[in-house]
Amino acid sequence: MDTTTIYNSSDTICAISTAPGAGAIAVVRISGSDALPIAAKVWHGADIKTVESHTAHLGNIVDKATGNVIDQAVATIFRGPRSFTGEDTVEFAIHGSRWIQKKLVGLLIKSGARLALPGEFTRRAFSAGKMDLAEAEAVADLISSSSQAAHRLAITQMRGDFSRKLNALRDELIQLASLLELELDFSEEDVEFASRERLMQLTQALHTRLSRLAQSFEAGQAIKDGIPIAIIGPTNAGKSSLLNALLGDDRAIVSDIHGTTRDIVEDTLEIGPYLVRFKDTAGLRQTTDTIESIGIERSRQAARNAGIVIFVVDTTAPLNMDDIAAEIDSIDTQRLIFVLNKCDIASSEIHTKVLSQHVAAPIITISVQTGEGLENLKSTLLAAIEKIVDNCEDDIIVTNARHAAALNAASQSAAAIIEGLAANIPPDFIAQDLRETIHHLSSITGQITTPDILQSIFSHFCIGK
Amino acid sequence: MDTTTIYNSSDTICAISTAPGAGAIAVVRISGSDALPIAAKVWHGADIKTVESHTAHLGNIVDKATGNVIDQAVATIFRGPRSFTGEDTVEFAIHGSRWIQKKLVGLLIKSGARLALPGEFTRRAFSAGKMDLAEAEAVADLISSSSQAAHRLAITQMRGDFSRKLNALRDELIQLASLLELELDFSEEDVEFASRERLMQLTQALHTRLSRLAQSFEAGQAIKDGIPIAIIGPTNAGKSSLLNALLGDDRAIVSDIHGTTRDIVEDTLEIGPYLVRFKDTAGLRQTTDTIESIGIERSRQAARNAGIVIFVVDTTAPLNMDDIAAEIDSIDTQRLIFVLNKCDIASSEIHTKVLSQHVAAPIITISVQTGEGLENLKSTLLAAIEKIVDNCEDDIIVTNARHAAALNAASQSAAAIIEGLAANIPPDFIAQDLRETIHHLSSITGQITTPDILQSIFSHFCIGK
Repeated sequence: MDTTTIYNSSDTICAISTAPGAGAIAVVRISGSDALPIAAKVWHGADIKTVESHTAHLGNIVDKATGNVIDQAVATIFRGPRSFTGEDTVEFAIHGSRWIQKKLVGLLIKSGARLALPGEFTRRAFSAGKMDLAEAEAVADLISSSSQAAHRLAITQMRGDFSRKLNALRDELIQLASLLELELDFSEEDVEFASRERLMQLTQALHTRLSRLAQSFEAGQAIKDGIPIAIIGPTNAGKSSLLNALLGDDRAIVSDIHGTTRDIVEDTLEIGPYLVRFKDTAGLRQTTDTIESIGIERSRQAARNAGIVIFVVDTTAPLNMDDIAAEIDSIDTQRLIFVLNKCDIASSEIHTKVLSQHVAAPIITISVQTGEGLENLKSTLLAAIEKIVDNCEDDIIVTNARHAAALNAASQSAAAIIEGLAANIPPDFIAQDLRETIHHLSSITGQITTPDILQSIFSHFCIGK
Repeated sequence: MDTTTIYNSSDTICAISTAPGAGAIAVVRISGSDALPIAAKVWHGADIKTVESHTAHLGNIVDKATGNVIDQAVATIFRGPRSFTGEDTVEFAIHGSRWIQKKLVGLLIKSGARLALPGEFTRRAFSAGKMDLAEAEAVADLISSSSQAAHRLAITQMRGDFSRKLNALRDELIQLASLLELELDFSEEDVEFASRERLMQLTQALHTRLSRLAQSFEAGQAIKDGIPIAIIGPTNAGKSSLLNALLGDDRAIVSDIHGTTRDIVEDTLEIGPYLVRFKDTAGLRQTTDTIESIGIERSRQAARNAGIVIFVVDTTAPLNMDDIAAEIDSIDTQRLIFVLNKCDIASSEIHTKVLSQHVAAPIITISVQTGEGLENLKSTLLAAIEKIVDNCEDDIIVTNARHAAALNAASQSAAAIIEGLAANIPPDFIAQDLRETIHHLSSITGQITTPDILQSIFSHFCIGK
């Protein structure tokens, strides 16, 4: 279905806004210029059309065609513009049976409402100027956030901190533009009003900040989707047992994600405020078995792509520093943590000594069997995660691919300005690059947008939001 | 956990009341004497403790320990006794991320609330006299209702129609009792004030009504869980294709329930207002294959247990009336529907003629291939279902096993009264049976109850209701 063709912002829309399925309560929301009269058509109780805004009323949902009472419900009325969408809105809190939910939506549609498109309530909030585009997008992130850190990023963005940051950058760019305009106006007189050196300095500073914001996307994505942590090491070092031990005491909030690759098992866990995504890999060893070789190659690939790599060493076996060196060759030691397992049955002293002479990574002694050292490992992981995350501009972390792309584009335009200034090209060319930079920034918060962009953004929302 | 020991009705309780999982909105409910001050502890916005009842307020959920904003939310305040539970209640409508839901409940617990037990909100509504026990039980049925008919029974019960019916019966019994008491008072004078004949008549009428109510449980259970319809017939008559054709145009509301038996496939469908539960069975034929014999025996068992049996006949094959007669021997023709399939490639005339001479069941000619006759079959099914359902007292249908058991017990006590009256036993013995009858009826609506009964009833509710 081509949803753009049926999108009409003057319609009154309705949808189930609570999670799908049966629950004690479900909320059905109606928004639009006819929300109150349409809601009144399915309602027996206080007069929805005349009650005060922000008041809740007990009554009955009634199918007036048959006279049947569908449910006892509470109707809460929000008159525009004091509502989420800015329009008149009614929320019916009903008993959460699937049948009642479906029936009420059916009745509302019969009474003149239309089923809301995904994200249409939030899109209307954006159109009414209740929030900018970046804030609206944060609503979807907020709903899907599954860790404290992801939640924090989403709510910071929803409350406008990210937009304020972008708007400040944009204001600086506009100031630069006005300096340039001044130069343009007097260009025939060959007078440089705006010192090129000053322009250069300002643009370079802006460029750095734009690039860093764009780069923060990697951390943002990791926070949103979970930071990938690969557990590698020789066979029988206790990698899988370590994963189970780490998950063990938090089993309730763990979900199994079996990878598309048969041999890497994924599991998520919250460490401090962060969601991490453990990948338990095939053991590293010399083998002539083709299938096992593929598994080992995949382990190495997982290590290369991981944010953090845990290398598990068996302290009951002799340390082969050459093998280890070969494996960690392509891994940044900043991202590496060594775990010496089985400290309950063997001393880790010599292993620690040798390892620490060769690599500058944390070395943690543990016993998966007894649980010794696990808390230490978690703290070390948390510190490593924070190092990844802290490497970002002013606490603002980009979590949205669209924003990252726009920031990258803005950063490239800024680089073009710098190049132009260095080459001493005429100011009108520079002004062109400047306008482009501003354009890219404006697209993030939606000061500049198109129906297509809006369509593509809001279609990823859930229905009812 | 022994929940009885921690049940304390003076605690303030909280729970997520919407369906589990992520949604646009989730609702967290707090109820109890400290609901307002506890809610105020996690809230930044209008003063929850002083705002008017039944008003909604936009504000922020705040973790005051860290100062972090957890979410933007709407708080709706219901002051007792004008609330569902009869107690002060706050409902927070928040963004439906799992993380926010969990966090808010955590904050409320830190602030002095306790996680509600299953059904505890409704239990409090019962304790506050907001609803009787049968009405409270209907709340759970309402939430799980998955067809119009199941919904109708639940809402009728929730709105008190069932209770009113029971109370009327109870009042009649109490009147009988007072007639008997009169006789008891004057028993030494050997005067029969209450005509025994009159008592007998009244008790017999009551007994009939109690039995019919108890018997309606079979229909009630079928309506609630789905009316079982077995599709039987010879192999290759088109049984599975018929099931698929029936489900086809309603695929969206169909769920697959694979039986514990490997060879019977179940699927549910709404026919008119009723949920039906089709069982597609193994084809009937003579076989020496042991596994297939077991399958065929299961088909026969499914037919015996079904509310309705559809016997599918292949019109391209000759009709073997002896085989059919043997199969339907144990099936009430009232519950039987014959379907002559493949009318697109063979005439059903002779089959219809022969069949109608032997059995008094509806005979429907269809083609699963072209869809011909399917609507006719559905109407015939609907009529058959209604025949099952209509066989009940005054539109009141018992859907609850506890109620059915109590009604059966009441009916047995009433039978004992009748026996006693017939045997002319002394009135005090009869009075004893009468008190028992009243007791059983009272247990349904909860005029007589125990903490254990309440515990067992409400523990089957979902948390948050």
